[in-house]
Amino acid sequence: MPDIAALSAALAGIEQSDDAALLRQKSRDFYWYSPVLKAQLDGKRADLWVRPANEAEVLRVLVAARSAGVPVTVRGGATGNYGQCVPLNGGIVLDTTAMTAPIGITDGVLEAEAGARMIDLDLWARDRGWELRLWPSTKRTATIAGFVAGGGAGVGGIAHGTMRERGNLNGVRVATLQDPPALLDLDGDAAAPVNRTYGTTGVITRVRIPLVPAQAWRDMAVTFADFSDAARFALALAFADGIQKKMAGVFDARLPPFFRGLADAVPEGNALVLAMIAPSGLVAFRDLVREHGGTIVADQDTVAAERDPDATPFYEYCWNHTTLQVLKRDRGVTYLQCRFPFEDTLRAVEAVRAKFHDEVWMHTECVRFGGRTTMTALPVIRWTDEARLNAIMAGFEAEGIGIANPHVFTIEGGSGYRRVPGDQLGFKRRVDPLGLFNPGKMASFDAPETDAA
Amino acid sequence: MPDIAALSAALAGIEQSDDAALLRQKSRDFYWYSPVLKAQLDGKRADLWVRPANEAEVLRVLVAARSAGVPVTVRGGATGNYGQCVPLNGGIVLDTTAMTAPIGITDGVLEAEAGARMIDLDLWARDRGWELRLWPSTKRTATIAGFVAGGGAGVGGIAHGTMRERGNLNGVRVATLQDPPALLDLDGDAAAPVNRTYGTTGVITRVRIPLVPAQAWRDMAVTFADFSDAARFALALAFADGIQKKMAGVFDARLPPFFRGLADAVPEGNALVLAMIAPSGLVAFRDLVREHGGTIVADQDTVAAERDPDATPFYEYCWNHTTLQVLKRDRGVTYLQCRFPFEDTLRAVEAVRAKFHDEVWMHTECVRFGGRTTMTALPVIRWTDEARLNAIMAGFEAEGIGIANPHVFTIEGGSGYRRVPGDQLGFKRRVDPLGLFNPGKMASFDAPETDAA
Repeated sequence: MPDIAALSAALAGIEQSDDAALLRQKSRDFYWYSPVLKAQLDGKRADLWVRPANEAEVLRVLVAARSAGVPVTVRGGATGNYGQCVPLNGGIVLDTTAMTAPIGITDGVLEAEAGARMIDLDLWARDRGWELRLWPSTKRTATIAGFVAGGGAGVGGIAHGTMRERGNLNGVRVATLQDPPALLDLDGDAAAPVNRTYGTTGVITRVRIPLVPAQAWRDMAVTFADFSDAARFALALAFADGIQKKMAGVFDARLPPFFRGLADAVPEGNALVLAMIAPSGLVAFRDLVREHGGTIVADQDTVAAERDPDATPFYEYCWNHTTLQVLKRDRGVTYLQCRFPFEDTLRAVEAVRAKFHDEVWMHTECVRFGGRTTMTALPVIRWTDEARLNAIMAGFEAEGIGIANPHVFTIEGGSGYRRVPGDQLGFKRRVDPLGLFNPGKMASFDAPETDAA
Repeated sequence: MPDIAALSAALAGIEQSDDAALLRQKSRDFYWYSPVLKAQLDGKRADLWVRPANEAEVLRVLVAARSAGVPVTVRGGATGNYGQCVPLNGGIVLDTTAMTAPIGITDGVLEAEAGARMIDLDLWARDRGWELRLWPSTKRTATIAGFVAGGGAGVGGIAHGTMRERGNLNGVRVATLQDPPALLDLDGDAAAPVNRTYGTTGVITRVRIPLVPAQAWRDMAVTFADFSDAARFALALAFADGIQKKMAGVFDARLPPFFRGLADAVPEGNALVLAMIAPSGLVAFRDLVREHGGTIVADQDTVAAERDPDATPFYEYCWNHTTLQVLKRDRGVTYLQCRFPFEDTLRAVEAVRAKFHDEVWMHTECVRFGGRTTMTALPVIRWTDEARLNAIMAGFEAEGIGIANPHVFTIEGGSGYRRVPGDQLGFKRRVDPLGLFNPGKMASFDAPETDAA
């Protein structure tokens, strides 16, 4: 049992608290989307919350933690869904949200402090003629380092892939638990060991990401009598290189009634497509809608909606906000994350829709991986029990659909590949020899006998 | 035989000439890349050259031509390679190069007069924060309407596809040979009937094309010991969504010695990749170069090179300028245009490289079609005779490689599909019932019995 009082004293001058209610709050994320994780993670709690104001304070925290042998779990906006920032073994939760400065834009690359919220960075960049390539549906609360360390997919994926696509992360500065703790600057490929490792490979203090030149975006809502027509339209849009877009999500007719502010525009029983389109593409977009028999039922300026506290940009119905919109009114559901094959994508979608029609409310998002276009799905699932959930996942996999299981808290378990890349494990061993960064999350480090690297 | 003197008199006040030397010059394009076309088209000549200053003058020309039953062949920058603007049956050559005004940019869509040069439009747009998506290697002389009517592929294709990709042409205004001649405004899909029809379906007077927000570009030259490594690198770059790029061309080691201004940088016997990369992507680009064993031997600011009359932007070694660079010093070559399959792209490249090693100097360009990435090739071919050229083309096709034959002057013959879309033929019948627009170029109109529409 660590001596928290001594640790606290050693960190005097750094914002901190050991208040029980605060520690409970600061030890959670959105893992409760998963009844499986809820059972496993409820009650997990840090012993001390610290919120360093700068890199020097981060290093002080790490020196003290190393000296005391206390785990350090990094926390950003805590918008993750797999317990990424839930400390399994107590210790310190290191909150990055006091380090929020955008530092600058050089040659289209934004450098920012770890805890900057993505909405703030995007609006700051936009004032300077640039915009983010990618953001999560939780853009209003997610931090940039949290997106790198625990997310990485979302809006913009239809054009730019994920944060793991080479070139979408230019570099990071990371604080280590070496002897002594140090700051490392990692560029390009060298930054891969901190990409989606849930803070197990260091405390990211700065992030460098490439931007794209800013332009206006138009939120478009299109309805279809059938889901299959909606999906065919969305995938055709994804392949339409002449139409610049940032998003195309497809929703089973049972989902739009949960979309407050948009539900009234969608006729009952209709499937819905939500898209973000550059204004220059609207002529072609309307041609494509007409060709596929869709009806445009709502549209708005995305950025204006984003800046208006009373409005909802359509991306807040998309990606994992879809599940949240339902959970707000019905706690009897959960969700899945899956990736459809590149070939015969729609056949695979229809196969699992038919197989699990009553309990799977399909929701797909068009996305690129490795330069190729397909759909991912974050369907809403009527919860029965874990055995049934596993049966549904097996049913998806039987159709050639990859599952990135959101009901496990290890990096490996949640990965489509069931492992971490070798360079991440090697890097972890180098920068965290004592295994104090978010212990229990990188399974192949915690159980070296299963190391496949 | 038309009464040219009467026609000329009817067009008094419009810039015109019947000077023989001028008519010879204004009846040609770059068809002489092809010895086959050279034999067929040399000596073809218009009877009257007219250069209308505005749409009203265009309509006056068309009224007079219709009345006299005289053919009208539209000419822009005359940078085409298939005799697109060579009048087969005399008549009027209608030169658009006096109509050059950029009209405006609305919601990212540029409207311009037909004869505006692409370089001028791009620099004009860039001053306003936008840039062209696509341009030919002849950007300095090609006109926007000529690119729509007779080109449509080139730099930018690695990101945006071709001008035939839905969304890359927002609309046109076109003058017809109906009774009476009229101006039609066509938006989106409705503009497809004038897309790459060589002026057989009307005189484009205005073009509306979508732009993208401007950014800086970096010309990068990378050498490799082997062509196959260069090709593998270029295709990996094409699939790297995290790296924004506008071009990636691959050149057999026999080609760079013809690239004045760049040849000295390329070690003898080395294959070359030329790319245009956004500055934000350079970190990842260098990682990719290193991974593939390449060496960066030259780089420059693309736009600065474009504005410097003594410099050569790298795109002027690419696309069909590659062939031109060789022809400047060796008239014993010609070229091909082909598209490699989406799957096993590099295998097909290597197969024809091996099969025709001595007489085919391979040159590929990465490009997207229908949302998928592959390579096209514009290899330089050592000329023997037409029979050997046909044998080479057959050898390419036997490997699953599509040929867009640049040695024929009809739309259908030069298309990968060997036909025009039905809507183009129907539109032609409507707007040119007398068949006076560039007769002989749309074979399925001129020989209706072969109409497959």
